[in-house]
Amino acid sequence: MKKGKIFSGMRPTGQLHIGHLSVIENWIRLQDEYDCVFGIVDWHALTTSFDDVQALQRRIRDIALDWLSAGLDPEKSPIMVQSQVKEHAELHLLFSMMTPLSWLERVPTYKDQIQQFGAQGKDISMYGFLGYPLLQAADILIYKATHVPVGQDQIPHIELSREVARRFNHLYQTEVFPEPQVLLSEVPLLPGIDNRKMSKSYGNDIALSASSEEIKEKVRLMVTDPARVRKTDLGNPDVCVVHTYHKIYNDGEVCDIGDQCRKAGIGCVACKQRLAAKLETILGPIRERRAELLAKPGRVDEILAEGSLQARAKAADTMEQVREAMGVRGVMD
Amino acid sequence: MKKGKIFSGMRPTGQLHIGHLSVIENWIRLQDEYDCVFGIVDWHALTTSFDDVQALQRRIRDIALDWLSAGLDPEKSPIMVQSQVKEHAELHLLFSMMTPLSWLERVPTYKDQIQQFGAQGKDISMYGFLGYPLLQAADILIYKATHVPVGQDQIPHIELSREVARRFNHLYQTEVFPEPQVLLSEVPLLPGIDNRKMSKSYGNDIALSASSEEIKEKVRLMVTDPARVRKTDLGNPDVCVVHTYHKIYNDGEVCDIGDQCRKAGIGCVACKQRLAAKLETILGPIRERRAELLAKPGRVDEILAEGSLQARAKAADTMEQVREAMGVRGVMD
Ligand code: SF4
Ligand code: SF4
Repeated sequence: MKKGKIFSGMRPTGQLHIGHLSVIENWIRLQDEYDCVFGIVDWHALTTSFDDVQALQRRIRDIALDWLSAGLDPEKSPIMVQSQVKEHAELHLLFSMMTPLSWLERVPTYKDQIQQFGAQGKDISMYGFLGYPLLQAADILIYKATHVPVGQDQIPHIELSREVARRFNHLYQTEVFPEPQVLLSEVPLLPGIDNRKMSKSYGNDIALSASSEEIKEKVRLMVTDPARVRKTDLGNPDVCVVHTYHKIYNDGEVCDIGDQCRKAGIGCVACKQRLAAKLETILGPIRERRAELLAKPGRVDEILAEGSLQARAKAADTMEQVREAMGVRGVMD
Repeated sequence: MKKGKIFSGMRPTGQLHIGHLSVIENWIRLQDEYDCVFGIVDWHALTTSFDDVQALQRRIRDIALDWLSAGLDPEKSPIMVQSQVKEHAELHLLFSMMTPLSWLERVPTYKDQIQQFGAQGKDISMYGFLGYPLLQAADILIYKATHVPVGQDQIPHIELSREVARRFNHLYQTEVFPEPQVLLSEVPLLPGIDNRKMSKSYGNDIALSASSEEIKEKVRLMVTDPARVRKTDLGNPDVCVVHTYHKIYNDGEVCDIGDQCRKAGIGCVACKQRLAAKLETILGPIRERRAELLAKPGRVDEILAEGSLQARAKAADTMEQVREAMGVRGVMD
């Protein structure tokens, strides 16, 4: 007996890094407890990258490969590509007819993001960008999701989905949509190796697909306590990225490492070797699964096609009810 | 050799009246000169009637029956229902990603209509209402229409379609879309029988499906020169609805009727009989075709299903090119 239904997705913006792993690990846990659908939301990527679409297909395969390598199981829940389930576009359009403009204008991230992109000289004040949280509502509600695992910043978007569900049910005197609840997932914030936000574009990330050598090299370059020049200097682990990683990945040993650092009982080289070895135990199995998948050409496409087909069947069921409720169920539906 | 491609449509808002006839007669002429697709745009009806959807399916069949009775030929060009060709929703969504919000906000009818409906106590400031001209652009461009027959008031909407086509072609370095041109159709403005705007809601219309009795009754109720009480009074045809109709429908006789009226050579009763007889020659054949269609249960649905299928094939072709250009052509497309 499952606890409910979940939809969750990511934009295909490029290869994932180790900072994304906790989100996927959370999904993997949820696969057993809920009926899940996981989506690569490529239409959403267009809201800010409509003018940079060259690599979109490669990015979709990359993120799918990352999810599958990390252990997400397509046998347990469909992994779909948003643009392959056209019903999302239809539901988005139907929702648009009954969703007040003001609901979208007041989503907190809306004006922020236009400004942020504007500062980079990029104009994203498109009609579709304003409607992006409504497309997200369609993504979620088309699977009748009861729960959505998100971080703190996404709560206003889920609130909008709840309002849309409520308004639809009320207007058409129906109970098609549950009001999805937030499953708050506390994701530890992993800094980049230079202690800034981890991002591929800064080059300060450790890719999920990193080789043993790449892991060692990235850890070698990690910013440590700058005041600790020699091994005999006492260290301050609180300002050291390596220590931040140890805290997250070497839970049991972290007090010990911090203490040793403070009294110069461990050198940075050895400390980094321990971290690299730990990261290898995490990324090694992921790397192996990736190699297995890549050894079967077309396997990822197959999984996405199969997942999209399964998702489409669920979406089509919901759309029948939606069309019926709105009186647009026609001769061919 | 056809002159180009045309898409044109109407919202299913209720039974048509004789004032709509010139639009359909224009379409019938265009059927021979252009590759046409005619659409019953039911999704558009939702932009202002999302909360009143009970009769939508009946209205769709009513308008189809009106078109077919008036002589629109489904053998020459497909008659489709917008909601049955989901590709319109997908193209609308893709366009939304690259269409500046400001283009939609500055469409002249936008603020006007919100105010007009607002004065009636109806809030239509929905996200989809703002996007309605963009849905129209998708309707037109998905069939690669080169021409759109519209009245003066629709010119800004077609201009938007042209801008969207241009921007798409430019952004994706393609020539998928032609820029559709306005085919300005001069439609004679037919007043209602009380000389106000003709509208079913005022009860001052003559339905396309009017029986002979209904025609006679409506003409009998037409507002004439109020100063002409007796047959011997001299009349002023310029203030008489009957005369306006004679001018439109009895082209050759109209000078004669006007003159006769001015010198009291014809009475209003006889004048109205002549008009009713003329309207009967117009609406009679329409009534017969309607009866023939109604004698074949399911025939209208069949025509709409067949037309929507044909339209979908055209729309699917365009969408393949659109997805290719935008990089969203996935494993299942
Ligand atoms: S010993 Fe470890 S925790 Fe201390 S400064 Fe060096 S790398 Fe950082
Ligand atoms: S005679 Fe004809 S045109 Fe003159 S007032 Fe009567 S109805 Fe009107």
